[in-house]
Amino acid sequence: MTASKNLNVAFIGLGQMGLALATNLLKAGYPLTVYNRTASKAADLVAQGARLAASPAEAARHADVVFTMVTDDAALTDLTTGPEGLLHGLPKGAIHVSCSTVAPDTNRQLAEAHAKHGTTLVAAPVFGKPDAAAAAKLWIATSGPAAAKSTSAPLLTVLGQGTHDFGDEVGAANVVKLCGNFMLGAAIEAMAEAFTLAQKSGLGREQVYDFFTSTIFAAPVYKSYGKLIATEHYQPVGAAPAIIRKDLKLVLREAQEHLVPMPFANIVFDQLSATVALNKPDVDWASFAERVSENAGLGKR
Amino acid sequence: MTASKNLNVAFIGLGQMGLALATNLLKAGYPLTVYNRTASKAADLVAQGARLAASPAEAARHADVVFTMVTDDAALTDLTTGPEGLLHGLPKGAIHVSCSTVAPDTNRQLAEAHAKHGTTLVAAPVFGKPDAAAAAKLWIATSGPAAAKSTSAPLLTVLGQGTHDFGDEVGAANVVKLCGNFMLGAAIEAMAEAFTLAQKSGLGREQVYDFFTSTIFAAPVYKSYGKLIATEHYQPVGAAPAIIRKDLKLVLREAQEHLVPMPFANIVFDQLSATVALNKPDVDWASFAERVSENAGLGKR
Amino acid sequence: MTASKNLNVAFIGLGQMGLALATNLLKAGYPLTVYNRTASKAADLVAQGARLAASPAEAARHADVVFTMVTDDAALTDLTTGPEGLLHGLPKGAIHVSCSTVAPDTNRQLAEAHAKHGTTLVAAPVFGKPDAAAAAKLWIATSGPAAAKSTSAPLLTVLGQGTHDFGDEVGAANVVKLCGNFMLGAAIEAMAEAFTLAQKSGLGREQVYDFFTSTIFAAPVYKSYGKLIATEHYQPVGAAPAIIRKDLKLVLREAQEHLVPMPFANIVFDQLSATVALNKPDVDWASFAERVSENAGLGKR
Amino acid sequence: MTASKNLNVAFIGLGQMGLALATNLLKAGYPLTVYNRTASKAADLVAQGARLAASPAEAARHADVVFTMVTDDAALTDLTTGPEGLLHGLPKGAIHVSCSTVAPDTNRQLAEAHAKHGTTLVAAPVFGKPDAAAAAKLWIATSGPAAAKSTSAPLLTVLGQGTHDFGDEVGAANVVKLCGNFMLGAAIEAMAEAFTLAQKSGLGREQVYDFFTSTIFAAPVYKSYGKLIATEHYQPVGAAPAIIRKDLKLVLREAQEHLVPMPFANIVFDQLSATVALNKPDVDWASFAERVSENAGLGKR
Repeated sequence: MTASKNLNVAFIGLGQMGLALATNLLKAGYPLTVYNRTASKAADLVAQGARLAASPAEAARHADVVFTMVTDDAALTDLTTGPEGLLHGLPKGAIHVSCSTVAPDTNRQLAEAHAKHGTTLVAAPVFGKPDAAAAAKLWIATSGPAAAKSTSAPLLTVLGQGTHDFGDEVGAANVVKLCGNFMLGAAIEAMAEAFTLAQKSGLGREQVYDFFTSTIFAAPVYKSYGKLIATEHYQPVGAAPAIIRKDLKLVLREAQEHLVPMPFANIVFDQLSATVALNKPDVDWASFAERVSENAGLGKR
Repeated sequence: MTASKNLNVAFIGLGQMGLALATNLLKAGYPLTVYNRTASKAADLVAQGARLAASPAEAARHADVVFTMVTDDAALTDLTTGPEGLLHGLPKGAIHVSCSTVAPDTNRQLAEAHAKHGTTLVAAPVFGKPDAAAAAKLWIATSGPAAAKSTSAPLLTVLGQGTHDFGDEVGAANVVKLCGNFMLGAAIEAMAEAFTLAQKSGLGREQVYDFFTSTIFAAPVYKSYGKLIATEHYQPVGAAPAIIRKDLKLVLREAQEHLVPMPFANIVFDQLSATVALNKPDVDWASFAERVSENAGLGKR
Repeated sequence: MTASKNLNVAFIGLGQMGLALATNLLKAGYPLTVYNRTASKAADLVAQGARLAASPAEAARHADVVFTMVTDDAALTDLTTGPEGLLHGLPKGAIHVSCSTVAPDTNRQLAEAHAKHGTTLVAAPVFGKPDAAAAAKLWIATSGPAAAKSTSAPLLTVLGQGTHDFGDEVGAANVVKLCGNFMLGAAIEAMAEAFTLAQKSGLGREQVYDFFTSTIFAAPVYKSYGKLIATEHYQPVGAAPAIIRKDLKLVLREAQEHLVPMPFANIVFDQLSATVALNKPDVDWASFAERVSENAGLGKR
Repeated sequence: MTASKNLNVAFIGLGQMGLALATNLLKAGYPLTVYNRTASKAADLVAQGARLAASPAEAARHADVVFTMVTDDAALTDLTTGPEGLLHGLPKGAIHVSCSTVAPDTNRQLAEAHAKHGTTLVAAPVFGKPDAAAAAKLWIATSGPAAAKSTSAPLLTVLGQGTHDFGDEVGAANVVKLCGNFMLGAAIEAMAEAFTLAQKSGLGREQVYDFFTSTIFAAPVYKSYGKLIATEHYQPVGAAPAIIRKDLKLVLREAQEHLVPMPFANIVFDQLSATVALNKPDVDWASFAERVSENAGLGKR
């Protein structure tokens, strides 16, 4: 680790994911200013040398690059263009790296606001659970102006194991992120149906899980989410059902706008809606897989 | 290669998959007798030293182990217990290794017929495309009596890169096979929906494919089937739509019997039914992914 | 009522529906012989003058027309062609009127058996709940040979408010019956979704029911089934969930055979499967509508 | 008909439906001022004595009651609260009767704008095709303040065969309208699946249609829409696919907001999306039923 990093960095949004990202930036030696609505979540970072700001605008005031990682489009828009938004502080020429899962159009609109302000938006949604974030093992998709991506590239290197670029159109990376969360949801439902059929046919769920995830479905997400579904133990909470339901709602809105019938996406969304409606507390979103078991008459654990 | 292998082997059913399997057994040095309804398909094998039988019964007459690999339950039942079926020739104590994708109950019923005859059935469905079969890179699931599995194990080693056992209940491996084909179909539909959404949002299908299959979805089946879907080129034909539609029908029958609602399986089956109804010739079954594009108004290629 | 009716009639299968039909035939003055596996259910009919037979064959022995009304294909086949089946008693030239909801192919196969025996099968599935049966308000669809339909027509007049003929092909009326039960199931799911949306939007379920069933959806089945769904009181039991699930399974088998994707039928079938899996006792099959409410987080009543 | 009617009426939005409604109000003797973006559509009304206004505000200037009937929420909001919106002209104490199919929230928001202005909004969506509108045979659902509903009641009597009230909450009638259009779409899909299954089983579509719509499904909408589906002739155009797709999108948004999984609504919406994506010109929205036939391999007519 070195303190010679020559970029001033700000980080706004210290939820489970944001905290992990900010911590890695700080560990890598970048001077870091942070902001979070609930300031207490910044305590550890401050103890490690971060500066705490009182508003997004203040956090951005001396930043070369400001990261944001929040739960939805409204929060991102507010902390960017709202009364105390980062645009009120961000110096001309600086860069906003937007890591949240939001609608592509939200980033497109914010990019226009940045352009008027003389700053630049880079979309950089991340793929991975909080433990992957802590281990700097995320995969990152980027889109936006080339120069800004080039400047922020060393920072993204600190956060993940690889960055894939999707071009200049700033909404593109978020389309990819939405596709990814949809495909994840589809994999969860598929495993839930398969494991439940196997179970009711007399096999063990974990036996089937072990086979597939060590052979033809040996992908990281099948292994990690499949484990939860096979063991029917939906802990720890990577993301709550309501959070990912919001993402799937964005998927369906994109599908509506572009006239793409997506029957699998409808089913995943409905499973998440029912899970939220039934108000299951403190479980990972993959717990919608339980609905498949329950519909097959298998008792709740 | 050695000719000293001490098991006489028979192989019945020389379609694309069966031919690859039989060829590998012959290459490994096992004395091989083959049977196929259309005898001409055995020509290459005979040229390499295999003996051609005139019926399943004759093929099985001197076999220690007889393999079968055919397209459906009716064919398997007929060549096992029919008038010229292998049971009329198979010596007491010999083993029937059933590799076809059939209903678990079909293997269960055949296992009973074997038991009366003093022979044994092992279920050994395989996972992989014809090219994987040719390269001896299949994954194999087994179930059935332990002694018979032990005897046939060296032969399976010749055919695949790994065997996973699912216990004594002979139907179990076929349940796993059906789960696998269902999960494959679900992965195809999920990719089709995601790639089509990306395409209509202005991204390239292959760009999205490359990203996911090199990161969180880096599984063999996502790579191989995803390539067909990303490029919209459904060649070569690993299996025709009608073949896998039959497998999905078996999935739905198992689900009906065990009262397991499987909404994803319904959708995959319906996509395959429409593909067969529309009578697309000579394309891989993954071509049902085209229906997603077409429903989104994208012209046919 | 008159005793001068010149046809000897037999009735096999005295469930809720069969008992109502047989009672109406007896009241109309037809000499009636009955058979039921559980003979005690015939007590009332016997008290009113019916003769009780000890087997289907015996019931049919002096019949000009024998009716059957049983729960599934296996039962119908057994009581027709089984060891004590009606074919062993039915006189040459007599008629079998098959009212059960069975696969079209089942009636086609039985028609062939009848043809060999010198007798004739008429398919005559009925539409209506048990109370409509008791009130002779059923609607009846027929198919089969014209002469046999002509002979049995006066009997059908006693049972329903109208008969519609679907031609000579004996399976046709059963196709219509399956279409009808599917459309009923679809109407139930549609009302369940609409009433639940209205309820969660602050309206009363019954208010919405009253409006639609007195205006654009003023059809008998919307009124009768809609009442159960609006009031969430699934009594009395017209037919149990498992019975109609069997019918929907036949719908899906026909759809499979004829390559007809039916997404609504899949959903109705899955709702019924889950209802049966969750083992709700003594409710009408329309109670699968409760699943829609429950998935929306509304507590059970 | 009499000219003594004592309410000044304005009508904004002269599409197929609006024109029929306005004509009936004029015929009934009400002094009528009209506005339409494309003024030429008002020619017939003007020839019959209506006054043509140059803007919504001008149309409303002397109105006791102003009706609006436009295609979507944005149009309704613009002509109500926009720069030339009717609120700029409507006298205090006057009433706005909103007949369009819009989101309940849109009417709620407009009702607030009216309240500030000293005027009142009544929601009065209508049920029926253009020919029913012309014949004054619509069914009307109302919601909003009691006094305003009472004042406008005689006008609604002129337009339909019956009005059902859903209380003071102004959004309620639009919830009912959305439920109705959803249930219609579900009935269309159900008939399409049933008729296609019957057709592929050898029956005639119209034969099946005739039976059901004269017996258990003898409801106006089954008769009228079913005729189009049975004959596969989707003319005349009551409403274009894109128009009703917009309505179903509103259904899904309400369902999302209230956490109501609606699998049937998803399917109907996707059918409409595909129909719009495939850009079929000049057919009634019920033509999405053709997709069921096409998916079953039946050629296009």
